[in-house]
Amino acid sequence: MRLWRGEVSVRSSRRLEVIDVTREVRRLVRESGISEGLASAWVPHTTAALTVNEPDPDLWEDILETLARLVPVEGDYRHNAKYSRLPGEQNAHAHILSSMIRPGITLPVSSGDLDLGTWQAVLLVELDGPRKRRVKVTVLGE
Amino acid sequence: MRLWRGEVSVRSSRRLEVIDVTREVRRLVRESGISEGLASAWVPHTTAALTVNEPDPDLWEDILETLARLVPVEGDYRHNAKYSRLPGEQNAHAHILSSMIRPGITLPVSSGDLDLGTWQAVLLVELDGPRKRRVKVTVLGE
Amino acid sequence: MRLWRGEVSVRSSRRLEVIDVTREVRRLVRESGISEGLASAWVPHTTAALTVNEPDPDLWEDILETLARLVPVEGDYRHNAKYSRLPGEQNAHAHILSSMIRPGITLPVSSGDLDLGTWQAVLLVELDGPRKRRVKVTVLGE
Repeated sequence: MRLWRGEVSVRSSRRLEVIDVTREVRRLVRESGISEGLASAWVPHTTAALTVNEPDPDLWEDILETLARLVPVEGDYRHNAKYSRLPGEQNAHAHILSSMIRPGITLPVSSGDLDLGTWQAVLLVELDGPRKRRVKVTVLGE
Repeated sequence: MRLWRGEVSVRSSRRLEVIDVTREVRRLVRESGISEGLASAWVPHTTAALTVNEPDPDLWEDILETLARLVPVEGDYRHNAKYSRLPGEQNAHAHILSSMIRPGITLPVSSGDLDLGTWQAVLLVELDGPRKRRVKVTVLGE
Repeated sequence: MRLWRGEVSVRSSRRLEVIDVTREVRRLVRESGISEGLASAWVPHTTAALTVNEPDPDLWEDILETLARLVPVEGDYRHNAKYSRLPGEQNAHAHILSSMIRPGITLPVSSGDLDLGTWQAVLLVELDGPRKRRVKVTVLGE
């Protein structure tokens, strides 16, 4: 049983954005040399999240539109009021959505690769971009 | 430290449905022979999800009604418009909800069994049934 | 590769409340003596959840207000109707939100400590307090 860790950075270009990081996470898993186990992906951020779904940019727009409908960017938030002089801190919506979707996901690894379903991709959900984002990957297995 | 994997299939019978898969996941964990560790359950699908809550069918209806209120099955989705000729692809709601709830959950294992709270059951959330669904289980421990 | 488990209890004082349990989870991880790996935190409850976000009580109010707006405490729930004579069971909102946020989170461990981002804290989301709540921690690593 072995443990391996790696990290990758991606850059978002919009306030709300879905970024497919499957290739990056997959590369780290292959680099680990671990054949069977689990890979934990983690964003060390409080205004982004990780999830898994189809690599379909139209669907990503549907996801982002739904998230912004449920938790509007412009809202009457205490967090934003407290930091009303800081334009960069008008992001309560991003913290709330990150809390709901969450910053980590544990993925199965098999045959030295991510063991995802046919239509599954690892997606970083940017909720307060544009920013540089990190994805940390821990692989545990044999 | 050992690793074990197994898989089980279940069949949903409705468009939106909660299916209790505790017995199936528990059977795989016992079969693994691993006494203490973690079990990762994973659905390799983008229109279903896994969660944990009470085995109460009335509550399940409340959950499904809430999910469909927050993310309506009938909506103005780009994904559905793009595939407007494919009746099987009118399922953006399912992709969005699967992204929010997510396809995997990591469960504690103790004394060779799932170590759940008294009222906790492992629930597969079908969001675009009826379909056959797979649940992959990876057990890591000793 | 080693496995370690520990547990901690916290007491909530309100119906809906966010409680920062970072210090408690961190103490257990340090106690484990495991340097590199993963820590799985788990609440064995169906009306609470775990997430990660900033240790900002104003933000926590925003989170709770949003959750209660999306899934109102007072609602027309089957679960509540079925248990209409049990005041302690008027908590369908809590079960639904716990199903959406979920009771477990897997956290990276490095240098014998939780490896969180600068602004990340481990948060217990109480959805039906006040109650005593347990957090079980399983650490896997070397």
